[in-house]
Amino acid sequence: MSDPATRLDARLAPRLAERREAGLHRRAEVLDGYDGATAVRPDGRRCTVFCGNDYLGLAADPRPARALAECAQRLGSGAGAAHLVTGHRPEHEALEAELAAFTGREAALLFSTGYMANLGVVTTLLRRGQAVAEDRLNHASLIDAVRLAGGRPRRYRHADPLHLAERIDGGAGMVVTDGVFSMDGDLAPLPELAAAAEAAGAVLVVDDAHGLGVIGPGGQGSVPATGCAPERVPVLVGPLGKAFGTFGAFVAGSRTVIEALRQWARTYIYTTAPPPAQAAAALEAVRIARAEAWRREWLQALIARFRAGARELGLPVVQPPGVPTPILPVLVGHSTTATAWSAELDRRGLHVAAIRPPTVPAGTARLRVSLTACHGEEDIDRLLEALDAAARRHPATVEAAP
Amino acid sequence: MSDPATRLDARLAPRLAERREAGLHRRAEVLDGYDGATAVRPDGRRCTVFCGNDYLGLAADPRPARALAECAQRLGSGAGAAHLVTGHRPEHEALEAELAAFTGREAALLFSTGYMANLGVVTTLLRRGQAVAEDRLNHASLIDAVRLAGGRPRRYRHADPLHLAERIDGGAGMVVTDGVFSMDGDLAPLPELAAAAEAAGAVLVVDDAHGLGVIGPGGQGSVPATGCAPERVPVLVGPLGKAFGTFGAFVAGSRTVIEALRQWARTYIYTTAPPPAQAAAALEAVRIARAEAWRREWLQALIARFRAGARELGLPVVQPPGVPTPILPVLVGHSTTATAWSAELDRRGLHVAAIRPPTVPAGTARLRVSLTACHGEEDIDRLLEALDAAARRHPATVEAAP
Repeated sequence: MSDPATRLDARLAPRLAERREAGLHRRAEVLDGYDGATAVRPDGRRCTVFCGNDYLGLAADPRPARALAECAQRLGSGAGAAHLVTGHRPEHEALEAELAAFTGREAALLFSTGYMANLGVVTTLLRRGQAVAEDRLNHASLIDAVRLAGGRPRRYRHADPLHLAERIDGGAGMVVTDGVFSMDGDLAPLPELAAAAEAAGAVLVVDDAHGLGVIGPGGQGSVPATGCAPERVPVLVGPLGKAFGTFGAFVAGSRTVIEALRQWARTYIYTTAPPPAQAAAALEAVRIARAEAWRREWLQALIARFRAGARELGLPVVQPPGVPTPILPVLVGHSTTATAWSAELDRRGLHVAAIRPPTVPAGTARLRVSLTACHGEEDIDRLLEALDAAARRHPATVEAAP
Repeated sequence: MSDPATRLDARLAPRLAERREAGLHRRAEVLDGYDGATAVRPDGRRCTVFCGNDYLGLAADPRPARALAECAQRLGSGAGAAHLVTGHRPEHEALEAELAAFTGREAALLFSTGYMANLGVVTTLLRRGQAVAEDRLNHASLIDAVRLAGGRPRRYRHADPLHLAERIDGGAGMVVTDGVFSMDGDLAPLPELAAAAEAAGAVLVVDDAHGLGVIGPGGQGSVPATGCAPERVPVLVGPLGKAFGTFGAFVAGSRTVIEALRQWARTYIYTTAPPPAQAAAALEAVRIARAEAWRREWLQALIARFRAGARELGLPVVQPPGVPTPILPVLVGHSTTATAWSAELDRRGLHVAAIRPPTVPAGTARLRVSLTACHGEEDIDRLLEALDAAARRHPATVEAAP
């Protein structure tokens, strides 16, 4: 009998081969010297990147980096323990206070990642066996959170409050939704979802990973951007690794909600606290994001330019009504078409990753174009030109842009 | 009708009050200026800390901190996207290669936290509905991983291979265990567990969060420390935020296992990559941990001094047979006794957090003493003296040290 490692490999190898044959194999391409808008490929060529989540261009801004460096040299590279043991520092406190102020909530609690935040929120606030309504296109971490919490999932059609209401007619513990959908770039209709949640006695939880810092007055995200009153969203999950260009996540809410998470969220309690230097960097980034409204304004100008150009060229760019976001999916259909478009862009020095099933539904493979405040108008024009060329060489296999 | 936020608060408030009354309320004390062995309390007093996981004293070492600072100033404060989109950097590659070499495995894959690593491993390698054997004292993240993966949990008595064999007599998909138990400090009997796993056709997964870097030849952890052949543990989960003093985690295994995780582990795919600066810091820390054997030797000398002193004073310090680890639980019994001991130590300038249910089983509240290579012999002597004083004032409520 062979050893267990060999047997495990033998079991996994055919699944991997199958995936390769289906054109769904994924690899992590090594990019160097990323500065928000450009990076260097392994072959040494510089490319313009249109697929990150660093919407405000803060990941390579020298100020958060300096805060990180300064704090690391003063306090070291790690927290050394969980928050509730001996890992909590003044830098974490200051960041939590800033995030509460920024979101207009009583309190905030840091988590290591958005994934951990969502797992913590749902497992703490839901009772096992309660129904949970979730948008069909919710992020993987929300879907997993409901599963881990033992909730009874009630998926509703994307951004459809009427279907939601139907699905939780008999009552529900929770409604969970992305604020801005990560692969589609549209906003959840929060006031309508809130009304349906209230009617069913359910708590509305919004993960605003791609909205906070980016849209709404002062970058306050999807809640004000959709005209929803903050008290209708009792639990708000926010990112530090996207618009704020650093790493980690947080939950904002009432003092009571935050206190409950501190007591019961296993993904908060049983894990090492983030390095204080990382908290210092995030604090600096949040302050910059609040102060520098020009970043959001410039980003909106670029979005408008791209959308207008795409319309003119007849490109299959999804343009939902309402507040424009920097996530601009180019729907091409088949996985192989998406790969071909991505390769065409690559030849022109542009980097846009192809997003394929199962990340998105079958038949809706896409180039997820995302813009940042580091891009210039000439970048947008080059991108439009390249997409036009790709469209001519490899016609999209979807009927029309929705 | 009140608003949803108010209703949620009203539902949570009584649970919080109840917890406070039961003496189980937890708070995150803010410590400043942590240097591995000492920190400053909010009232300005410096204290010696005996409850972190920075076993080798690398969290405040200037070299990883310098690597972090240097890389942040060159590359910024964040990766800006997931690994498979545009977040993967040469720093991640270099760290993965170093971790594979360090653990003697073909490949390694970075995860944001140990929690995310365990969720990724179990959900990827287990088929839904398969039986999974787990040690009763496994870390929360392993328990949650089995739950999320839809495994049928088969808990076995702590570190008991015979009970394990009984529990998975009809076959199992996986056996998961901590290498070193985080609240007990003992090692899992890996060769015996491996034999039982093999007999049942199960894959053995070891989370060596508290063993890697600390014990075994060259700090290679629980697997060599227990004399277990590496191929009997096909999947090894390791920490970066404990002995390596930074943040994050990794999985090491065959190229095939790592490739499978890259393709299917949702907690790897759908999350922002760690900042490259953090990877640079961890790389430096792993190199130091490998090179500076004196840290492990000094740590073992301190452990021996503490254990001998505790025996002499008749303190209820758990001293399992086998390889000594720096986790040295002082079993006191009731939660209130644990809090009283912790307060007594506090008056003497020593910080040891009380660990209470539900983190540990009811009636086994403890002071989880942990030592680091930053401690001196005089620190150990002061700790023993303080524990002796606490024992006289507040007798332990457990019968005897196991």
